[in-house]
Amino acid sequence: MDAILHGDEAVLRPLMARHADLSARVTLRHAERVVTMHDKPAQIMRHGQGTSMFSTIDAVKDGEASAAVSCGNTGALMAVSMLRLRKLPGVNRPAIACLWPSRNPGGFNLMLDVGADVKAEADDLLQYAVMGASYARNGLALKRPRIGLLNVGTEEHKGRVELKEAHDRMAEVAKVSDFDYVGFVEGGDLPSDRVDVIVTDGFTGNVALKTGEGTAKLISDFMKEAFGAGIMSKFAALLAMNSLKRLQKRIDPRRVNGGVFLGLNGTVVKSHGAADETGVAAAIGLAHQLAQVRFIERLAARVASAERAGQDAAQEGPGIAAGTGDGSTA
Amino acid sequence: MDAILHGDEAVLRPLMARHADLSARVTLRHAERVVTMHDKPAQIMRHGQGTSMFSTIDAVKDGEASAAVSCGNTGALMAVSMLRLRKLPGVNRPAIACLWPSRNPGGFNLMLDVGADVKAEADDLLQYAVMGASYARNGLALKRPRIGLLNVGTEEHKGRVELKEAHDRMAEVAKVSDFDYVGFVEGGDLPSDRVDVIVTDGFTGNVALKTGEGTAKLISDFMKEAFGAGIMSKFAALLAMNSLKRLQKRIDPRRVNGGVFLGLNGTVVKSHGAADETGVAAAIGLAHQLAQVRFIERLAARVASAERAGQDAAQEGPGIAAGTGDGSTA
Repeated sequence: MDAILHGDEAVLRPLMARHADLSARVTLRHAERVVTMHDKPAQIMRHGQGTSMFSTIDAVKDGEASAAVSCGNTGALMAVSMLRLRKLPGVNRPAIACLWPSRNPGGFNLMLDVGADVKAEADDLLQYAVMGASYARNGLALKRPRIGLLNVGTEEHKGRVELKEAHDRMAEVAKVSDFDYVGFVEGGDLPSDRVDVIVTDGFTGNVALKTGEGTAKLISDFMKEAFGAGIMSKFAALLAMNSLKRLQKRIDPRRVNGGVFLGLNGTVVKSHGAADETGVAAAIGLAHQLAQVRFIERLAARVASAERAGQDAAQEGPGIAAGTGDGSTA
Repeated sequence: MDAILHGDEAVLRPLMARHADLSARVTLRHAERVVTMHDKPAQIMRHGQGTSMFSTIDAVKDGEASAAVSCGNTGALMAVSMLRLRKLPGVNRPAIACLWPSRNPGGFNLMLDVGADVKAEADDLLQYAVMGASYARNGLALKRPRIGLLNVGTEEHKGRVELKEAHDRMAEVAKVSDFDYVGFVEGGDLPSDRVDVIVTDGFTGNVALKTGEGTAKLISDFMKEAFGAGIMSKFAALLAMNSLKRLQKRIDPRRVNGGVFLGLNGTVVKSHGAADETGVAAAIGLAHQLAQVRFIERLAARVASAERAGQDAAQEGPGIAAGTGDGSTA
C-alpha cells in the first residue's frame, strides 16, 4: 500500500524524516491551509479550497487515491465529501457508520447513522440498512448480517411514525439485500449478540455514541480512583494488570475507530479527532481493506438493486413480493 | 411514614406476616388483578379497573396517599397516571425524570424526558427545564440547578429546529425559573459536572438511558471475565474487593432508581421492574421526601409562573424581558 499525505510540508517533512522507511511509500502533498475543529461546514464548502481536507478528498475524486482517511472536523469532512465526491445514485442521505464494542464473536457491532444528518425518514432508514449490511459484509466479513432498528421498545406499536413505516417495509428490503431483519432493538441492545447492525437517525445515533463513550470513560475514571485508594487496592491493580489491559483492549475506543461515510462515490474513513497512532493505524487499515474489496462498487450495486426492488414493489402494489437482487456478491 | 400496599392479599399477607414490625405501618389493600409487563397502555386505560396499579394511583387521586410507588409497566403506569391524576394546569406533555451517575458532588445528574413521550416541541422542552429544575431543587437539594439541552454538538447552529428554538428562548425561562442555562450539551456530558439537569425528548432520553445502562452492564461483564481469568487475577479481585464494591455502588442502577413522573396532579415514582429491595427502598424514600416538601404544589407554582412569564413575553413581543417569578421557593 502506498499513501499520499496531505498537509503543511514544513511541518510534515521533518516528521517523516524520522521514519526513513516511510519515504518510499508515502508521497507528501503540500497544502497551504487546514480545516480547524471550529470551522463551520458551510464555510468550508464555500471557502475550503487549498486546505488539506479538500486536497485529500480530491485525490479520491480524481482516482489518484482509492480511499481517504481524516481525523479532522466531522461536519466539514462530510460536507466536503458530499460536495466533491457527490452522493451515490439513488442515495438521499449519506450516513456515518461506526463500530461499537459488543458481545458478538467479532467483538464489535455496527451502528449508523451516527451524525451525518439530524433526521431520517423511513426511506433513509431502509437505505441505511442496505448500506450497513453491505459494509458489514465487506468490512466485518459477516456473510448475512442481522439488522435491527433502534427504538424505545421492541413492541410493534411503539415509537415514532417513520420507525413504524420502516419496520413494516424492512422485510421486503431484507429479502433483496441479503440480510436478516431482527426487528426493533433498544439502547441496551447496542452491544448485544442478537444483532450486528443497528440502524437509527443521525441525531439519536450521535447521542447514543457519545453516551456510550461517556459512560465508559466515567467507569474507567471511577475504576482508576477505586484502584488508587489504599495500598491493598494498588497491590491488587498490579496483580490484575493483565486482566485490566485485556479489558481495556475490548472496549478501547481507538480500536473502535474508523467511522465510515456511506453513500458517496468514494470511501472516506473518519478517525477520531483525539486518536493516537493505534487509532489512526486502525482507520488506515480499514480504508485499505475497503479499497481492496472494491467496496464502493459493491455498495452502489446493492443500493441500485434495493431501489429497483422498491420500484417494482410500488408498481405491483403493496403486499406483493419485490424482485430479487441482481446476484452480485456486494 | 405509613403505607398502603396494593395487590393480591393471598400473596401479600403471608409475605407481610414474616415482618411483624410492618403490620403497624402498612395497610393491605386487596386488588383482584395486576397489570403485566406485556399489557398495552391503551388497553389498561380502558379495562384496567380492579388492578393494583389503578388502586395505587387512585389512592393518590383521592388524597389518601401523598405519593405512589410502582415497579410495574412504565407505559401503563404513565397512561393510568395521566388518566386518573390528570396533567397539571398548563402542562402539555408530562415527562419522566431519572437520575444518572455523574461526577457532581451529589453523585447524580438528572435527565428528562426518558420515555413518557416519543417527541417534544420547543415549548415542551422549555417546560421540561422548568420541571426538572424544580425536581432538582426539591429532590436533589440543588438551590440553583444548571440546565443543559441535549444536542449533537455544542455549537448554536447545530441540531434540530425545535432544539434551536428552545435554545433561543431558554434564557428567558431561566430568569423566571431560577436556574442557570449552560447551553447545548452532548451525550458525553450526561455524567458531566458542568450540568445538573439534562433536557431532551423522550425518544432520545430513553435511548440514551438504555445505552448507558447497557454500556455499564457490558463493562461489568467484561470485568468479571477479566478478573475470572487466571489465578493471579482471581487473587487480585479478592484483594481489590473493597474497591470494586465501592465502584459498583457509585454506578449502581439500583441507587439510580426512582424515575419520577413530572407534570401530573400527584407524585408518582417509577421503580425499575427488576429492582431488588435496595432499589424499591430508594424509590419509597424518594417518594416520601417529595411528599414531605409538598413537591407537587411547588412544581405547579413553577409551571404557572413560567407560563405567565411566557404570556407576558408574547404580549410584549420578542426581545422584551419576561416578568419575574412569583417569589415562591418551589
